[in-house]
Amino acid sequence: MQREGALKIPVIAANNARCKQLFDNRYGTGQSTLTAVMSATNLLIAGKTTVVAGYGWTGRGLAFYARGFGARVIVVEVDPVKALEALADGFAVMSLAEAAPLGDLFLTATGSIGVLRREHFQRMKDGALLANAGNYAHEIDVPALRQLAREEREVRRHVTEYVLRDGHRLHLLAQGALVNIVASDGHPVEIMDLSFSVQALAVHYLAQHADELKPGVVPLPDEIDFAIARTRLELLGVRLEKTTAEQEAYQQSWREP
Amino acid sequence: MQREGALKIPVIAANNARCKQLFDNRYGTGQSTLTAVMSATNLLIAGKTTVVAGYGWTGRGLAFYARGFGARVIVVEVDPVKALEALADGFAVMSLAEAAPLGDLFLTATGSIGVLRREHFQRMKDGALLANAGNYAHEIDVPALRQLAREEREVRRHVTEYVLRDGHRLHLLAQGALVNIVASDGHPVEIMDLSFSVQALAVHYLAQHADELKPGVVPLPDEIDFAIARTRLELLGVRLEKTTAEQEAYQQSWREP
Amino acid sequence: MQREGALKIPVIAANNARCKQLFDNRYGTGQSTLTAVMSATNLLIAGKTTVVAGYGWTGRGLAFYARGFGARVIVVEVDPVKALEALADGFAVMSLAEAAPLGDLFLTATGSIGVLRREHFQRMKDGALLANAGNYAHEIDVPALRQLAREEREVRRHVTEYVLRDGHRLHLLAQGALVNIVASDGHPVEIMDLSFSVQALAVHYLAQHADELKPGVVPLPDEIDFAIARTRLELLGVRLEKTTAEQEAYQQSWREP
Amino acid sequence: MQREGALKIPVIAANNARCKQLFDNRYGTGQSTLTAVMSATNLLIAGKTTVVAGYGWTGRGLAFYARGFGARVIVVEVDPVKALEALADGFAVMSLAEAAPLGDLFLTATGSIGVLRREHFQRMKDGALLANAGNYAHEIDVPALRQLAREEREVRRHVTEYVLRDGHRLHLLAQGALVNIVASDGHPVEIMDLSFSVQALAVHYLAQHADELKPGVVPLPDEIDFAIARTRLELLGVRLEKTTAEQEAYQQSWREP
Repeated sequence: MQREGALKIPVIAANNARCKQLFDNRYGTGQSTLTAVMSATNLLIAGKTTVVAGYGWTGRGLAFYARGFGARVIVVEVDPVKALEALADGFAVMSLAEAAPLGDLFLTATGSIGVLRREHFQRMKDGALLANAGNYAHEIDVPALRQLAREEREVRRHVTEYVLRDGHRLHLLAQGALVNIVASDGHPVEIMDLSFSVQALAVHYLAQHADELKPGVVPLPDEIDFAIARTRLELLGVRLEKTTAEQEAYQQSWREP
Repeated sequence: MQREGALKIPVIAANNARCKQLFDNRYGTGQSTLTAVMSATNLLIAGKTTVVAGYGWTGRGLAFYARGFGARVIVVEVDPVKALEALADGFAVMSLAEAAPLGDLFLTATGSIGVLRREHFQRMKDGALLANAGNYAHEIDVPALRQLAREEREVRRHVTEYVLRDGHRLHLLAQGALVNIVASDGHPVEIMDLSFSVQALAVHYLAQHADELKPGVVPLPDEIDFAIARTRLELLGVRLEKTTAEQEAYQQSWREP
Repeated sequence: MQREGALKIPVIAANNARCKQLFDNRYGTGQSTLTAVMSATNLLIAGKTTVVAGYGWTGRGLAFYARGFGARVIVVEVDPVKALEALADGFAVMSLAEAAPLGDLFLTATGSIGVLRREHFQRMKDGALLANAGNYAHEIDVPALRQLAREEREVRRHVTEYVLRDGHRLHLLAQGALVNIVASDGHPVEIMDLSFSVQALAVHYLAQHADELKPGVVPLPDEIDFAIARTRLELLGVRLEKTTAEQEAYQQSWREP
Repeated sequence: MQREGALKIPVIAANNARCKQLFDNRYGTGQSTLTAVMSATNLLIAGKTTVVAGYGWTGRGLAFYARGFGARVIVVEVDPVKALEALADGFAVMSLAEAAPLGDLFLTATGSIGVLRREHFQRMKDGALLANAGNYAHEIDVPALRQLAREEREVRRHVTEYVLRDGHRLHLLAQGALVNIVASDGHPVEIMDLSFSVQALAVHYLAQHADELKPGVVPLPDEIDFAIARTRLELLGVRLEKTTAEQEAYQQSWREP
């Protein structure tokens, strides 16, 4: 919108705040998605091959938590640096075409569309589970899944079974919508505290600086991120280290001490 | 019962089967308890100090899964060897008296009674969560908690808040009964497949050998454990390594090859 | 030896002591083997596919520590229950024939012989690393490797390169002997404290009870294991929980409380 | 230097490259530092309380790998958002004053100076280990440590023991210099491949664009990071997912699909 000049007012990209992205996307979606999958299906995560599409903050949360419950995780990425990170973090990395026949559970978290599609559904194992934890209901191509299926029924609350023409069954959770919101309570409350703080303080900042700000994306000032994190730490009774005057001076200068 | 001669019939201690204990107690209770806590409370596990009382198979499952979701885990044990193992597994180990003021979440899995008691409740943090994953509803001394409280109310489904006289609030899950059964669906189905197989084949074995067996505890024959595990692996398409004749011979003998 | 009546004196199987097996085999061999591999090769463990043959206490230590440094781990087992455990612990499980072409690093810990053999060497990737952490130098069939090779040279201290006839190179560490002893300092000292305590107290026990004991394998009395663990915990300042009189009574009885 | 106009030529901050920072700082320093500590001391990491000062990329590597070997990790930070992340990643967070009496092993990775100082040394446990994995030899205040000590001797290669006046002993590794370079081989070679690629291609870029670039810090072009990562993935035989035309279009536009 910025590039096209479509923003008529100053806007803060609250999702880019560190206190939003690092916590809400990673730990919030991570925990609530896994909880949703476990309670919707009553299946064991341990031992399941879990394919995570997207290794942004959301995908990382999913991958680490799935491993924490004993899954073997395959990461699918388009960005080569993120792919190398996923490898070094101990995950297998491959294309979706390669991962399709291996996965017991597929979790999408790319922020894009048409991630799991016809060509993948056709190669999946009997009984594979499909769930979306990304931003939209478009990551799993549900219309294509419907076309492939000769039968569709709800086998458990929030679990739709599609019987493909060859008899293979795929289980779609929450109809491809955000599984952590549909089949669970969404993010844990402590996470929403952070996210809502970002939003409230961003609006407050916009209101306060209405006169100076120009239309377009305004970065969230670092102090807001810091203030939110500091308040949370105080509530938890956690003490930060303080920078000494000597350290301060050292960090300001490029000269050898 | 055996010691006192109270067993009048042959009995198999199905809970001691490897296919029961290693899976049901560890992974089954582990996953379902954490899922129950997360969905009953909608709180974030990451960053919470979680106290696990008991480091048997159940406690191990709880400790590893809680860490897998980002908790810091304190283990409480009476057995010194298990305590050393918990330490080497990366957990803090201490007495309950020491852990009481530190925990955000307490999980009992000792198989004993009166584990969390008056003296501990009085030292806990405001807002601490208490849940039982052990064998009985006696691990958390609920009558003592009631006596200490000046107020009791259900604040969320399966969560009872006790306001102590000093204003501190403790949150008891599932009234101290098995939290994974009351506030969730119990063990994942794949786990029950194993446990029920143990039970069914144990009964089958007792019936088949009724004539030979004497009253008392009969050990589950290894072959039953192996047969169950082998069947599951086959279903999963997992291939075991086979012992070679040379290896077989080597393992049978104590002589240098 | 016991079965064949070859034991002429009372013997304690010190390796079966909990304070030996759970610590020395698991954490001691685990840490020292990984350290040896890392320092002998100067290669990154993160992202490497590591094949662990054997999922006894030693293999578990290797598997968990390799994962702790970012490896993807494949476990090879002959015991179906252990194989299921490895799966539930989040590892891939397969036969060596399947794992041979996948592994970057092979670690043997079976206590048996001829584990990695001709048929596996021939299918391994160029550059694969082979190391033994088991009980003997017989787990990797070095003579077979030599026969397959058209060239052999030391490429780094403790690393021998074998160039197979097809040009593939395999790297054998410590000539197939125990890699943690040859290429590193062996177990950390705290581990040896435990193991030597077991051995010393086992000898002491044998001496004290020389008159009563018959030839054959004598189990290490639990009290010795407990005493060693308790001493270590005291030195570390770690406090055990104490069983209450009420709990003691409960655990002694099979009657409902 | 840029701020003060002290840069007379165009300069690329190679350390900020994703292929440098995410791998070299995190996994490279992580693995080689832990290896150095283990081989210099022959001590067990499992069960040790490890204090990591700084939760940048280096500190994260140290914290995750230390936990991977069974340590309990305490993170010390000045940045409140990083402190919250460390908490959610499952680590304890506190000030150095609080951590000083708790740590068995201290690892500095702040990039600053005077991190471990007199006031901390005085509160440390007998036998505590001190090692630096940060950028300079100034993170541990060695002169202050010398002043406090009544005795100094090398107890093992790369390990200097300081006996404080009260009899407490502190063990400094590698004299406070970079422990992974002094007491081990430095980064694994695969990591150096990435880092040297960044440096070589950065120099190549500067040379190619010498005419257009102005004095000051020039960002490393994304394509260089991508090209390096892509080459590595190809060598490893790892396949990236490809963005479809439909996805490309979706990501370019802010309009609902």
